[in-house]
Amino acid sequence: MDYTIRAATLEDCKDIYRMIMELAKHEKVSDQVKIAQRDLVQDGFSKNPFFQSIIAEVPEQHRSSKDGHSKVGFALYFFAYSSWKGRSVYMEDLYVMPEYRGKGIGKALMSKIAQLGLAAGCNQLNFAVLNWNKESMDFYLSQGCWDVTTGLGYHCMRCEGPALEDLARGDPKN
Amino acid sequence: MDYTIRAATLEDCKDIYRMIMELAKHEKVSDQVKIAQRDLVQDGFSKNPFFQSIIAEVPEQHRSSKDGHSKVGFALYFFAYSSWKGRSVYMEDLYVMPEYRGKGIGKALMSKIAQLGLAAGCNQLNFAVLNWNKESMDFYLSQGCWDVTTGLGYHCMRCEGPALEDLARGDPKN
Repeated sequence: MDYTIRAATLEDCKDIYRMIMELAKHEKVSDQVKIAQRDLVQDGFSKNPFFQSIIAEVPEQHRSSKDGHSKVGFALYFFAYSSWKGRSVYMEDLYVMPEYRGKGIGKALMSKIAQLGLAAGCNQLNFAVLNWNKESMDFYLSQGCWDVTTGLGYHCMRCEGPALEDLARGDPKN
Repeated sequence: MDYTIRAATLEDCKDIYRMIMELAKHEKVSDQVKIAQRDLVQDGFSKNPFFQSIIAEVPEQHRSSKDGHSKVGFALYFFAYSSWKGRSVYMEDLYVMPEYRGKGIGKALMSKIAQLGLAAGCNQLNFAVLNWNKESMDFYLSQGCWDVTTGLGYHCMRCEGPALEDLARGDPKN
């Protein structure tokens, strides 16, 4: 099937948001999505964007059987830094609508991020995967990625909500 | 002990690099540091920096007993994005020289990053910790942070070196 991979524009925010919600539903955490479509507009397409995005699009005749979507996949990424290895690119999301899987679109999106990363002088592509999502884990391992949590013992840590406000005030409670 | 926390400047790169090497040595991975001081200059202090940094500095009379350093701690961070929660700040490094620990400097550096994150509209502070580093893990937990790897099953994944080049070419080998 023909498809194109291109940089997302402001006009794609509606579809990116739709697919973020589809992905969250697939990961069984749709109640965890706190952003709205307008946040994507503001955070991704203003002067100093917090993320960048690429879109996979199919031609008219291959629109999705349900609702007729032509934007069928996306990836969201941003540039990051490792104090050991230097510039890196972080892939926050990679999603292809179920109907369009198995056609190389996910691989093409990820390949594009690798290209963009290398072009920007990055040495690493980093991302997170949920340990129950064996299908995704197997896909990433097949692409030459390795598990830093298992391999080096990296744990992802987070501070948010009232704990983040307490920390900012210099008054952390536990 | 008096100390100040301030944004790093180009002139701090020498000390940031020194402390990155000290931290890597503490984490038993100094051979893993592939960047040079000039990379910090280029990547952190050019027009579109890949990271930002803050420095902890002590007055003249409290210079370090070895080598007389007054820049005794630093944190390196960048802005990131969660497609569920929106803007976030990522703390790549947090380090205080051993001689200056237990005086609240690490907590003050981390608090400053939380302040900068909240001021930029971030909802989360994220970072990674090595699972054998119980001292750091306990510190972070005491600051109201939680372990996303243990709690949600997040695994950090990485693609680098020849695998990243293969991926960019659309020709991943495993």
